[in-house]
Amino acid sequence: MAESTYTLKGMTCGHCVASVTEEVAGIEGVQNVDVDLATGTVTSGEPVPVEKVAAAVTEAGYELVS
Amino acid sequence: MAESTYTLKGMTCGHCVASVTEEVAGIEGVQNVDVDLATGTVTSGEPVPVEKVAAAVTEAGYELVS
Repeated sequence: MAESTYTLKGMTCGHCVASVTEEVAGIEGVQNVDVDLATGTVTSGEPVPVEKVAAAVTEAGYELVS
Repeated sequence: MAESTYTLKGMTCGHCVASVTEEVAGIEGVQNVDVDLATGTVTSGEPVPVEKVAAAVTEAGYELVS
Protein backbone atom coordinates (compact mmCIF):
# COMPACT_ATOMS: atom_id res chain seq x y z
CA MET A 1 0.00 0.00 0.00
CA ALA A 2 1.30 3.42 -0.88
CA GLU A 3 1.73 5.81 2.01
CA SER A 4 2.01 9.56 2.24
CA THR A 5 4.30 11.09 4.86
CA TYR A 6 4.51 14.79 5.56
CA THR A 7 6.48 16.83 8.07
CA LEU A 8 4.96 19.61 10.07
CA LYS A 9 5.98 21.92 12.85
CA GLY A 10 4.43 23.25 16.00
CA MET A 11 3.27 20.06 17.69
CA THR A 12 4.37 19.96 21.30
CA CYS A 13 2.21 17.43 23.10
CA GLY A 14 -0.29 14.64 22.89
CA HIS A 15 -3.15 17.07 22.46
CA CYS A 16 -1.47 18.39 19.34
CA VAL A 17 -1.09 14.86 18.01
CA ALA A 18 -4.79 14.23 18.62
CA SER A 19 -5.81 17.43 16.81
CA VAL A 20 -3.71 16.69 13.75
CA THR A 21 -4.84 13.06 13.69
CA GLU A 22 -8.48 14.11 13.78
CA GLU A 23 -8.13 16.63 10.97
CA VAL A 24 -6.10 14.40 8.66
CA ALA A 25 -8.40 11.45 9.33
CA GLY A 26 -11.21 13.66 8.07
CA ILE A 27 -9.72 13.90 4.59
CA GLU A 28 -11.72 11.94 2.03
CA GLY A 29 -10.14 8.60 1.29
CA VAL A 30 -7.89 8.55 4.34
CA GLN A 31 -8.46 5.56 6.56
CA ASN A 32 -5.22 5.23 8.48
CA VAL A 33 -3.32 8.08 10.10
CA ASP A 34 -0.20 7.95 12.21
CA VAL A 35 1.16 11.11 13.78
CA ASP A 36 4.60 11.00 15.38
CA LEU A 37 5.30 13.75 17.87
CA ALA A 38 9.02 12.99 18.12
CA THR A 39 9.64 13.31 14.40
CA GLY A 40 6.88 15.81 13.68
CA THR A 41 5.47 13.67 10.91
CA VAL A 42 2.03 12.57 9.83
CA THR A 43 1.66 9.45 7.72
CA SER A 44 -1.45 8.45 5.86
CA GLY A 45 -1.92 4.83 4.91
CA GLU A 46 -3.32 6.05 1.63
CA PRO A 47 -1.87 8.45 -0.96
CA VAL A 48 -3.27 11.91 -0.30
CA PRO A 49 -2.65 15.23 -2.10
CA VAL A 50 -0.35 17.62 -0.28
CA GLU A 51 -2.91 20.40 -0.66
CA LYS A 52 -5.45 18.48 1.36
CA VAL A 53 -2.95 17.57 4.05
CA ALA A 54 -1.74 21.16 4.25
CA ALA A 55 -5.32 22.38 4.68
CA ALA A 56 -6.02 19.82 7.40
CA VAL A 57 -2.82 20.64 9.26
CA THR A 58 -3.57 24.35 9.08
CA GLU A 59 -7.07 23.70 10.36
CA ALA A 60 -5.55 21.90 13.34
CA GLY A 61 -3.36 24.94 13.99
CA TYR A 62 -0.01 23.72 12.70
CA GLU A 63 2.12 24.18 9.61
CA LEU A 64 3.17 21.77 6.91
CA VAL A 65 6.85 22.17 6.11
CA SER A 66 7.57 19.31 3.73
CA MET B 1 -10.57 38.77 47.07
CA ALA B 2 -7.97 36.25 48.07
CA GLU B 3 -6.34 34.36 45.24
CA SER B 4 -4.41 31.14 45.02
CA THR B 5 -1.53 30.86 42.57
CA TYR B 6 0.36 27.65 41.90
CA THR B 7 3.17 26.76 39.54
CA LEU B 8 3.17 23.64 37.44
CA LYS B 9 5.27 22.07 34.76
CA GLY B 10 4.68 20.26 31.52
CA MET B 11 2.31 22.66 29.75
CA THR B 12 3.46 23.29 26.21
CA CYS B 13 0.52 24.65 24.26
CA GLY B 14 -2.99 26.02 24.29
CA HIS B 15 -4.47 22.55 24.56
CA CYS B 16 -2.57 22.06 27.80
CA VAL B 17 -3.88 25.37 29.12
CA ALA B 18 -7.43 24.30 28.27
CA SER B 19 -7.02 20.96 30.02
CA VAL B 20 -5.65 22.49 33.22
CA THR B 21 -8.28 25.22 33.18
CA GLU B 22 -11.06 22.66 32.86
CA GLU B 23 -9.81 20.50 35.71
CA VAL B 24 -9.11 23.35 38.13
CA ALA B 25 -12.44 24.98 37.29
CA GLY B 26 -14.04 21.73 38.39
CA ILE B 27 -12.81 22.11 41.97
CA GLU B 28 -15.63 22.90 44.38
CA GLY B 29 -15.74 26.59 45.19
CA VAL B 30 -13.56 27.68 42.28
CA GLN B 31 -15.28 30.16 40.01
CA ASN B 32 -12.42 31.95 38.29
CA VAL B 33 -9.36 30.28 36.83
CA ASP B 34 -6.50 31.83 34.92
CA VAL B 35 -3.79 29.64 33.45
CA ASP B 36 -0.67 31.31 32.07
CA LEU B 37 1.33 29.20 29.65
CA ALA B 38 4.33 31.54 29.63
CA THR B 39 4.80 31.46 33.40
CA GLY B 40 3.42 27.97 33.94
CA THR B 41 1.03 29.19 36.61
CA VAL B 42 -2.58 28.62 37.47
CA THR B 43 -4.43 31.21 39.53
CA SER B 44 -7.78 30.67 41.18
CA GLY B 45 -9.86 33.70 42.08
CA GLU B 46 -10.77 31.89 45.27
CA PRO B 47 -8.55 30.33 47.95
CA VAL B 48 -8.23 26.62 47.23
CA PRO B 49 -6.31 23.89 49.08
CA VAL B 50 -3.07 22.82 47.44
CA GLU B 51 -4.14 19.18 47.68
CA LYS B 52 -7.14 19.82 45.46
CA VAL B 53 -5.15 21.81 42.94
CA ALA B 54 -2.47 19.14 42.85
CA ALA B 55 -5.09 16.47 42.19
CA ALA B 56 -6.70 18.51 39.42
CA VAL B 57 -3.37 19.24 37.78
CA THR B 58 -2.39 15.57 37.94
CA GLU B 59 -5.74 14.63 36.44
CA ALA B 60 -5.01 17.00 33.55
CA GLY B 61 -1.66 15.26 33.04
CA TYR B 62 0.72 17.81 34.54
CA GLU B 63 2.65 18.27 37.76
CA LEU B 64 2.35 20.84 40.51
CA VAL B 65 5.79 22.08 41.53
CA SER B 66 5.02 24.91 43.96
